[in-house]
Order: sequence, then C-alpha cells, then structure tokens
Amino acid sequence: MEQELDTVGARMPMLDAAAKVKGAAQFTDDLILPGMLYGKILRSPLPHARILHIDTSKAERLPGVKGVMTGKDIPDRKYGIVPKAKDEYALAREKVRFIGDEVAAVCAVEPEIAEEALEQIQVEYEELPAVFDPLEAIKEGAPVIHDNVSRNISASIRKEFGDVEKGFKESDFIFEDAFYTQPVNHAPLEPHAALAQYDPLKGELTIWSCTQIPFFLRRNLSTTLLVPESKIRVIKPKVGGGFGQKIDLYAKDFCACWFAMRLGRPVKFLYEREEVFVATRQRHPVHLRVKTGLKKDGTIVAQQFWAHADGGAYNSTAPLMITLLGYFLMIPYRVPNLLYEGHHVYTNKPVGGAMRGHGVPQARFAVERQLDMIADRIGMDPAEIRIKNSMHAGESHPAKFIVNTCGFSDTVKKAAEAIGWREKRGKLPFGRGVGLAGGAFPSGVSNMSHISSGAVVQWGRDGAVNVLTGAADIGQGAETVIAQIVAEELGVPLEDVRVTAADTGITPLDPGTFGSGVTVRAGNAARMAALSVKKKLFEFVAEKLEVKPADLVAKEKRIYVKDSPDEGIALSDALKAYQYADLPMPIVGRGSWMAPTTEPTTLLREDGNFAPNYSFMTQAAEVDVDPLTGKVKVLKMVTAHDCGKAINPMLVEGQLEGSVVGGMGQALYEEVVMEKGQVMNPSFLDYGMPTTREMPEIETIEVETDDPLGPFGAKESGEGTQVSPAPAIANAIYDAIGIDFAELPITPEKILDALKGKADNQK
Amino acid sequence: MEQELDTVGARMPMLDAAAKVKGAAQFTDDLILPGMLYGKILRSPLPHARILHIDTSKAERLPGVKGVMTGKDIPDRKYGIVPKAKDEYALAREKVRFIGDEVAAVCAVEPEIAEEALEQIQVEYEELPAVFDPLEAIKEGAPVIHDNVSRNISASIRKEFGDVEKGFKESDFIFEDAFYTQPVNHAPLEPHAALAQYDPLKGELTIWSCTQIPFFLRRNLSTTLLVPESKIRVIKPKVGGGFGQKIDLYAKDFCACWFAMRLGRPVKFLYEREEVFVATRQRHPVHLRVKTGLKKDGTIVAQQFWAHADGGAYNSTAPLMITLLGYFLMIPYRVPNLLYEGHHVYTNKPVGGAMRGHGVPQARFAVERQLDMIADRIGMDPAEIRIKNSMHAGESHPAKFIVNTCGFSDTVKKAAEAIGWREKRGKLPFGRGVGLAGGAFPSGVSNMSHISSGAVVQWGRDGAVNVLTGAADIGQGAETVIAQIVAEELGVPLEDVRVTAADTGITPLDPGTFGSGVTVRAGNAARMAALSVKKKLFEFVAEKLEVKPADLVAKEKRIYVKDSPDEGIALSDALKAYQYADLPMPIVGRGSWMAPTTEPTTLLREDGNFAPNYSFMTQAAEVDVDPLTGKVKVLKMVTAHDCGKAINPMLVEGQLEGSVVGGMGQALYEEVVMEKGQVMNPSFLDYGMPTTREMPEIETIEVETDDPLGPFGAKESGEGTQVSPAPAIANAIYDAIGIDFAELPITPEKILDALKGKADNQK
Repeated sequence: MEQELDTVGARMPMLDAAAKVKGAAQFTDDLILPGMLYGKILRSPLPHARILHIDTSKAERLPGVKGVMTGKDIPDRKYGIVPKAKDEYALAREKVRFIGDEVAAVCAVEPEIAEEALEQIQVEYEELPAVFDPLEAIKEGAPVIHDNVSRNISASIRKEFGDVEKGFKESDFIFEDAFYTQPVNHAPLEPHAALAQYDPLKGELTIWSCTQIPFFLRRNLSTTLLVPESKIRVIKPKVGGGFGQKIDLYAKDFCACWFAMRLGRPVKFLYEREEVFVATRQRHPVHLRVKTGLKKDGTIVAQQFWAHADGGAYNSTAPLMITLLGYFLMIPYRVPNLLYEGHHVYTNKPVGGAMRGHGVPQARFAVERQLDMIADRIGMDPAEIRIKNSMHAGESHPAKFIVNTCGFSDTVKKAAEAIGWREKRGKLPFGRGVGLAGGAFPSGVSNMSHISSGAVVQWGRDGAVNVLTGAADIGQGAETVIAQIVAEELGVPLEDVRVTAADTGITPLDPGTFGSGVTVRAGNAARMAALSVKKKLFEFVAEKLEVKPADLVAKEKRIYVKDSPDEGIALSDALKAYQYADLPMPIVGRGSWMAPTTEPTTLLREDGNFAPNYSFMTQAAEVDVDPLTGKVKVLKMVTAHDCGKAINPMLVEGQLEGSVVGGMGQALYEEVVMEKGQVMNPSFLDYGMPTTREMPEIETIEVETDDPLGPFGAKESGEGTQVSPAPAIANAIYDAIGIDFAELPITPEKILDALKGKADNQK
Repeated sequence: MEQELDTVGARMPMLDAAAKVKGAAQFTDDLILPGMLYGKILRSPLPHARILHIDTSKAERLPGVKGVMTGKDIPDRKYGIVPKAKDEYALAREKVRFIGDEVAAVCAVEPEIAEEALEQIQVEYEELPAVFDPLEAIKEGAPVIHDNVSRNISASIRKEFGDVEKGFKESDFIFEDAFYTQPVNHAPLEPHAALAQYDPLKGELTIWSCTQIPFFLRRNLSTTLLVPESKIRVIKPKVGGGFGQKIDLYAKDFCACWFAMRLGRPVKFLYEREEVFVATRQRHPVHLRVKTGLKKDGTIVAQQFWAHADGGAYNSTAPLMITLLGYFLMIPYRVPNLLYEGHHVYTNKPVGGAMRGHGVPQARFAVERQLDMIADRIGMDPAEIRIKNSMHAGESHPAKFIVNTCGFSDTVKKAAEAIGWREKRGKLPFGRGVGLAGGAFPSGVSNMSHISSGAVVQWGRDGAVNVLTGAADIGQGAETVIAQIVAEELGVPLEDVRVTAADTGITPLDPGTFGSGVTVRAGNAARMAALSVKKKLFEFVAEKLEVKPADLVAKEKRIYVKDSPDEGIALSDALKAYQYADLPMPIVGRGSWMAPTTEPTTLLREDGNFAPNYSFMTQAAEVDVDPLTGKVKVLKMVTAHDCGKAINPMLVEGQLEGSVVGGMGQALYEEVVMEKGQVMNPSFLDYGMPTTREMPEIETIEVETDDPLGPFGAKESGEGTQVSPAPAIANAIYDAIGIDFAELPITPEKILDALKGKADNQK
C-alpha cells in the first residue's frame, strides 16, 4: 500500500453514534404509520403435535380485531436460508414441532387486544411423542419430526482430506476426546420487529424489518407470499444487533405483509423478549468428538472429527452450518489429513441458526481444548504447539483454501506476551491461571446464491458524496467503514460523505450482513464505484492540466499532480467545471464486487476456496477461580487479531471487545436451559449474559496484514474473535485448578462438583 | 409525434391514490420520531410595533418546556424567495409588522405544554402607527414599515412595449376602467408542518417539511441557519396541497431546525388552521386600472395598465409577482403597444405570496372584464373580439416571447360552443346568463437561480425501473406523470416503475413545484434519463441482432426491430445479457433539463422569453342569479385548455376541475376579511371555500397541441385554468342581470345592492 492514508485507518466514531446515544435513531418499532395495526402470534404449547382443528371465530368477533390467520390461509410454500433445505412455514400447517412454533396470528387496533384475541383462539391438538436429544433422535424408532427425513438427520457431510488412516498410522500419539457446547441465544438488545404497508393500486408491498439481509428477505417473502420481487420493497431501519439471529425470515415478517396486503392497513409485529429466546434462533448445541494424531514433536499428522449438531425443529442454515463447522477444522493449523463427519439433527426444540462464528466456536472449543490437553499429555507448551502447527500465507492447502495473508503465529506470540505467558503459565498460585486459544475465520464469504455487492457513488458539485449501498449496518458500523473508504478514494473529509443504505427500492443489490463479509464485499464495491467517478474526474482534470490521469491524486479537497503538489485545482472548481462540460448533475459511478470463490454450500460436494481472505486470531485469558464458591472471575482477556488493514481501529476494537464478551458469556454464564423442550430462562433476568460487572480488562492487539483482496487490505473483524474466548478461558481454568472441562458453560456448580470429585479421587 | 403511445396519454389514477384514500399515506404530521418535542409560535397581537423587551423566564421554567427562542437568538440573516428582496426573519428581531408576525417559539414535550408556555412569555411592545391600504401606504408621510423602503414600495416595474402614445393616437376607441381583486387564501387541506432532527456527530440536519421546493428550502435554511447546504437534508413527505403557499420558508421550518440543533431532539411544528390563514401567505389583493385603445373592428391597438399589489408586511415573491402580472398582459391577445406600471406595496397585513396563477388571475380579471365591457360598448360579440385579437403560434412577439404552439382561438370556439354561446348569450331570461374569459400561462418556467431539473433512471435486471427525481409531488400527480413518461420510453408497464422523489439527500437537483413547471422540467429530465439507459441497451441489443440501434423499439417488455416485430428479444433477456457483459447492477442513466429561457426576475430589466412553452385556455360559465337573495348559482363551467399533449388526461381533468372550483371561489365566495389588519374569518367555517354543494357541472375540453419543448408535447395544466373562471363568471353575471362588477368577490350583498342601485336609477 503505497498510498498515504487520511481517512482509512483513522479512529472515528460511527456515523450514527450520536443519534443512537441520544435515542433519536429510528429502529423498526419506532416507526408509526397512520392507521397502523398491531400483530401478535399464537405459539404452540406442545413440543410435537398434530393440529386437528383451529377455531378462530371467537377471536374474530372480539371488538378491535381486524384479522386472524392460520397456516391454512397461506400458500403452501416453505422457506429457509438454504434453497434446498427449506422446511418451514410462516405458520404451521399440519404439525407443530417445538414449544413456540407459530400456529396463528392476529392483528388488532391495539397490541393488548391482539394479545387478548390470542387467548380466544381454540386449537385442538393431537400430541405426538417428542424427542429432545439429538443422539436419541438419530436412533431407529425415534419420533419422526419431518416426514421423509429418516432418523431426523436433515443434513450431513463427510469429507476426507489427505489419507487419515495413513496419517494415524504415522502418528506417534493418538488422542480422542469428547466435548459438548450448549445452546446460547444471540440476545440482541432490539427484539425482532416488522412493519408492513401495502399499496393496492401499485401492488407494492413495503416492509421495514430489523433484518441483516434485506435482499434475501425480499426473495423469501416473494417466494412465500407469491408476490414478484419487484413489488416488494424491504427497508432496514436502524438495527439493534443481529449476530446472525436476524438473517432468517420470521412469522412477523410474513404475517405483517400478509395482513397488510389483505387489510390495506399498515401492520406491525414486535416480538416479546420471551419470543426472541424461544422462537427465533439460537447457537446450535453440538456433541463433538476429536481424534488427533501427532508426531513426538507435536506436529499434527491426522485428525478425525465427529459432530452432531442439535438443530431443533427446523433447518434454518443447517447445511451451511455443518459445512462451516467442518471446514474450519482446516485453519489456522496445518492438518494434512482430516476426516470430518457432521450431522444436523432435528429435535423438538427451538431452532438453531447462524450465530457469530456460525459453527466455528463449537469446533474451536473442541480442538483448542484438546490441543491444551494434548500439550499437557506430551509435555509441551500450549503456545508452542500452536505456533509449531500454524499455517502460513501462500502454502498449498489440502481443502484448496487460498490464504494470501496469515498472521496467525504472530497473534499467538503477541497474545501470549501480553497475557504474561512466560511468567504465569503453570506458575501462578492455585485458583489463578492463564490460557490461550487460536482461531481463524473466513472474511467476505460471498457468492451466496450469486448475489454480488453493488454500490453507486454520486459526487455533487459542492463536493458532497452520496453512496448508495445495499449493505446492512446492524450496529457494527458498516456505513461508517464504507464512508471512510469512499472519502479516502475521493480525497474528501468523512463528513462530506452520506451513505444511503439497505433499501431494496433504491440501493443496489447486496447479499447482506453475514459471513463477516460487509467490509470486504460492500467495501470493495464502494471503492470501485468511487474509483469510477474519480476516473471520470481525473481524465477531465488531466486534460486541463495537460498531464496524465495517473499522475493525479485527490487529497484534502484538491486534485493535484502527485510530484508537484502546487500544480492542481480545488476539488470544487474541478467538479464545477466538469458539470459545465457534462450535465448539471453529480458524477455517477457504479461498482460491483463478488468474491472469486466457491459458494459455501457447494463444499458439501466438492472442495474449494470459499472466502477471498481469512482472518486469524488468538485469545488469551487470565482467570481467578474461587474454590469456595466455584466462581470464575476473568481478570484479563487479550485478543490478538489479524484483520488485514483496520479501516477504523476504533470500530475494530469495538467488534473485538464485543466478541470477547460474547465468548466469555458462552464460556461461563450463558445457556438456554430447557426441560422437555420448554425454555426455562427466556428473560434477561434469568439468562446470564455478562454485564459491566463481569467485564475483564480487555487488551486488543491488531496484527495488521495487507490483504490483496480486501479494500485497502482489510479483512474481517466482526466474528472471528468470538470463536475462541471460550476455550481460552477453559484452558486458563485448567491452569488455575487443574481440571479439564469438556462441556460449556463452566458454571460454579460444575467447578464445585469437579473440585469435589478431584478431592474425592485424591482421598 | 410518430410514436404510437401506450402509457403516455392513458387515463391512470395517481400512483399514491390508494394510499391516500386509505389514510395510509404519510404526511409530515404523521411522522413521529423517538423523543420528539412539539413546537409552537408566539405571534404578534399588534399590526405594527417595536419590540422593547421579551421576558421568557416564566415560560422556560414551566415543567416540560425544553426550549424558548426569540429573534435575538438567531443569526441576522433575512430570507425570502427572490435573492434581492429578502426582508424577513424567522422570528421578528426589532419590530412586528402584522398581526400574526412571529415573535418567539417554544418547544416542549407535549403540544399543550408548548401552548401554555406561549402564554407565559411577556412581550413589551411600543405600538406604532399602522397602514392597511396600499393606496394610503404609498403616500408621503405614511407609516414606514421597512426602513429604507420609501413610500412602502418594495418592488416596481415599468415597461413599455411598442409605442403606447402612438397606439392610443391611432385608436378609434379608448376606454379606461378600474378593478379590484380581493385577498384569498390557498387553504390547502394539510396545514403547514415541519419536523427536524439533528445529528451532532455528522453535523447533519434532516428536515421533513410540507414544501413545494425542497432544494430552495435547503438553500434558505442554509443561509439563515448558517449551516452548509451539504449538511442539510430536506425530505418532502406526502403533501396535502400547496397552491403556492408551500413555497416560502416559514418559522416552523427554521425554528424546528434551530431547536433540533440545540436540543439534540427531534422537534415538530404543526400550524393551526388559523395560522395558515393569518401567518402564511395569501393571494395579493390588487388595485388595477386598464386603458385600452381599439380600432373600430375591435382590434386592440394599445393598452396601458396600472397595478398596485397589496403585499402585506413582507416581500415573499414580490418582484416576481409584479413581473408576471405585467408580462401576462402580453398573452393570449396581440397587444402591439403596452405600457405597464406595477408596484408591490407593504402594508401592516398578512403577507401576499405565490398562489396558483401568481399575479395573472388579478390581471386577467381586469382585462377579461374590460373586454366584455368594451364589446358591449362597441356592439361586438365578446367571443368574437377575443378570437379577433388572439395571438397565433410562430408570430413574432413584442415582449420576445417564443410561442411555438398556441391553441387559444380554438379554446374560445370550443368553450363557446360547449356552453351554448350562440343560443344563449344575451338570449336567456333575466337572472340567467353565460360568459367567457380567456387566459394563458407559462409552462415550465425554469431557470430560477439556475437550478435545473435532474433525473436518474436505474433499470434493473428484472425489468423494474427506479426513477430518482427531485420533483416535488404536492398532490398534483407529478410522480405518476414522470413514471408514465419513463414507462413509455422504456416499453414497460407503469407498475414496473418506482419513483423516488424529493429528498435532497438522495435525489437529483430540481427547482421544485411552481410556475406550472414540473411536467415540462422534471418530465423532460426523466425522459432524457430514460433515453440514456435505453440508448445503452439498444446499442447492446443492436449488436446482437446485427441491426442499427435506431431500428429498434422497446414496447410491451420486448425490444424488437421496428419493421419486423418478430425479430427481437424479451426485455428481461436483454437486461440479463447486458448485466453479464457489464456489471451485475442496474443500467444507470442521467438526464438534466433547463429551459432555454430567461430568468423571470431578469424581465424587470430586459425583455426575454421566460417559458419554454405557454398554455392557453378559455373558461365559459352559465349562471343563475336569484334577484331576491342575490345568490349566484353556477350551473355549468366549461374549461377548454391547450395543455399540449395530456400525459394523463385523468390527472389533467383533475387539475382543470380543481382550478375551476378555485376560480369560482374567488369569483363568488372567498375573501380574507380584515379589520385593521386583523383577519376576521380564519377558519373553514367562516371562510367561504366552495364545497360539493356549490359544484357546478364541469366540462373539460382538452385542446391538444404538440409542443416541441414539452415531453411528448406536453404543456402545463396545473395553474392556467385558474386565471379566468372569475372573469368568466362575472361576465356571465353581466349577461344575467346587466350589471358590471369590477370588484371581487361578487357576493349576494353586492348583487342586491347593485340591483337596488339599478332600480333606483331607473326610477
């Protein structure tokens, strides 16, 4: 990167920070339309049952009720994230499959009336046997949750890289261990909401929804409502966090549209917090088994990996999730021979879906915990075994990944140094310990259903720049990063750039926010659009100055000759002159970007590189375990992250810190507790998300590499960090009290039990 | 027009008709933002006074009050419509000049609290002598309303075309008559509102305002708030009528922004109906005198014209208004020699501004009434004298107008025929009569401060078209007309076109809605943008089909060879192929249009053609006058209008009918009644707008011409018709009862008085 940068790389608050802090930002539920109705959803009280009859007549007669709908009213079209794995209706048609499954919807002039109407709907069920454990669900004779899905396995993958049998034969040590990760909820602060409005004359449906993927939501609504995509406009207001939970279409979206179309009035749905917990998505609980073969010096030779993901009642991202879980066993370590077998299993429980890390945290917990166990067993330093097995940029890769930049071993070293590894590991008093864990993540995963990222840049005469992007900022700062990229290219201050985003009616196509892709995908597209307008202006100015366009630079609102800065023209003069010569309108440029990669679901069948670049990271933790109470206090977390070039280090830090806290929650506090399919703790009071009181000191270390496919060298920073805090903390707990935990979360009860067991053994 | 048209020329309901009928359309007051405050304005109870002291302390202490501002708080920057005639502050700084003048503003958490706070503000005034009659105001020694404006004349024009003295010498007859037109209010159904929000981090102000001219509002806010234009975003929600009253910046706009910037919370102002009447704008009352010289055969040789417009306390559009009033004496009749003298006079009354017709209805009333009086005096048929003096297309013009199309004499003939002129004029029993009056209006007046109309057309792969336009639809159907023009050019159905309009943050520059210009200005721009994308696609398709681009047509979602329709390609295939060859993004085209004309205010100094084309029209009325009650019932109105090509005849009829009713109100019912500057009837109950009960049969006759400068030949239809219903009705009243009324409105009282006077004279 020769360029000297002004805006890219600068620490800047998010463009909408002030509006959010002041409460002025409009989230979906803040929107109020004239004549608006309020919708509510009736949910199944049973984990598995056939719907025999629904009597809505009493509800319909309730004054103020404007509409009641059931699964019988809607088209027989299933939806889902992955085209071939669609298995869900907005409202159940014949069966309910988990406690919380959607049975009917009502809308009324007041939410309280809608609520009351739900109680007036009488549903006759025939209860069916249910199954809650995926290892039970795959047995012959287990209850069948979806017809034609034998043994409840809805998606499977079995892939071998290299020769695993040979690999194990060549190994000096072979270890096999089992692990389990719990269900956790994304718990975004903003509950799910949708507001739909229909114009019967234009036949146009507009929906404001807290979605991460406006264009996919449009597609799913189109195929389920049977309305052409061009007649559906999805607008994303401010979104209060998604973490993957706002990728799916939900009943609130479908039913808001359905009612709006039939009643001709705007209809809003807002989920209760309980519904967010029970009836949206959660991180898949997974049963994992890892068998690893190594040479004496700690070099990994072969690995075999089994995963049974508990998917709950529906697929959501199932094929994708088990693919990611398996493929990410191939980084950040060299694993020349790997056999992976993964299954996604239906149970009569809440549905698993994409969540920050999407399958990888589960795999990482198993691998990183086992690496520490192995290091202990073969007498090696856990940091050293990681550095020894670290992959490096440019190496050929058994799964055909193309890794152009890789700062992994650096992240291990820097994280270790920052946590005081050398002085502390194995040397702290009982109850204190340090641990670390590595990770890697794909950046800019693209090619989902061949939807590219587009951007339009308009450069006005006053120098003000308007960027149209389909990218969905869900709180991570995407719009700020895109604005920085464009400001940098055009040599204008950030405040001159306005971003108009995520409205399928006016912004270009974009796959949305997932797969840690926005900075790379939409950032590249915006940069190309900026380069396109710059090219036009530079060609014009170059002719006036009698130089070559390539000799010019745009900086600080001037365009001048690179090597003789006095020879130039004020940007405003250049734009004015251009307009006079062209049209009295902004210069318009378009950019479009799609990663030169393989679509992730294709990996079920064949290998390929599915991300333009990959981030690498190491987490290190120092913990204090109180042997009397079993309570773990995380004293410090270090996160060393190779995010390529940090476009905005302040936002990168925000992402890293958020990921650390999310991972810490999964390590120690959070679990969606269920009894026979019933969620027992669906509230912020009962569900143990870490709060400020639990916050450790966090040190973030950005290990910058310069990736050729990222805009200005950028890679992801939004998800990768969350994949390994849990094993890092678990590894630190081992260092503190000598107990290997294989199940999450590591609660005080488990610690006390384990300490008691250890004491009993020592008796 | 060789082209066979599908969408242009079709009768189609407005795109937003259903939303409006169902109450789902969002007007400014429908918008609600989190944490929103409510503003109210304290107005002067005196017509003319010096502000000695304002004590806001009690108001500030009222719980719930968040802000109080007075004229002392704001920058010393005046605003106004015409750059050199700015004379107004958002809040009065030293003096108040009319009852209703803005003195202070408050905002509070509830509108009722803001209202209460107004009562707590104590203002100490020194009352000054006031003047209410413009003919008094221009006398030496009259109270001075604005410093440095001698005799209260704020704008004057005196222009001579030809040689008037010589003209009168050559005349066989010379007549001189005086007339008066009353103040009327636009009375849009939607009262004025504004909602502003400020983002302190971006330094960006967003204002939703019921404005006709978003880009000029942005400019006026910029110069008065001292915030750069690029930091102000003006968004026009649905607007419930403007008629010229929503052109000016008002205190509600300024104060909403000012509070929002200082308090960091959104602030909404909504005017009461009384404020709309008292403190926005009204049609200027004008004292007029006309002296006309004619040949024996009725040919007009010379005309002299004096006008004193009562402007009230401020200028608003003053120089423009007196220019229009005068220049439109030059059409639709040939007037080879004309001397015009016009003055805009300050008085201590509510402010005059642009209103449908903008100065022309006043002049037309005088001229068209006098023409009938002259016809009677010289024994000629009123229709004949109009046809004889009608101008014709292509004639050279004393004021340098370029009139490419003119259907005026046709409109006289058709209107006369439709009202039954031959059978009825002078032949109906006492109390029944018919009358007619001609008119003309500029179409697409442009060039205001050199702001052009721009449009961007995006043509997506699914055939859906997105048009970005700055044009402000205020209820007239601008967006529908623009969509029709684009749909026609691209050969797609109207429902495939989405219009995104009037948001200075994302849509291209546009001067706004005034001067009957939107169809011509924004329509031409949109057509050019459509042609630009069509050109790109045609070049691409022509290469594939091995034909010339000029041989292709786009129609019914196909592109094919004009003379061999089977040789073609589905539009969707063409767009798809184009995207594969180009970028996976919509094709983007830009269009920009500015009339090749002279800026209207320039006409104060020099002659010129100020409109790309001109509409012509004749109104005919049949009335029944009850001699016992003096009540006039309009039985039928005919409006024959040369609007070029009617892009959407249904919308044209709506405009014509609305104009007829507006003119009828001015003829018979409406008047803002004032006593010493105090408006006595500021409510819909007391102000006599015609309702359905007064509606006559209306026959609209579209006299289509094909104008070379209008899109598809279109000219204006939104204002011109309103210039002559009043004289047509007055002329019919003369035919009915033989009395010449020279003052508006012609109320039952005036009729009874006149009938009594006539009877007394005959005694």
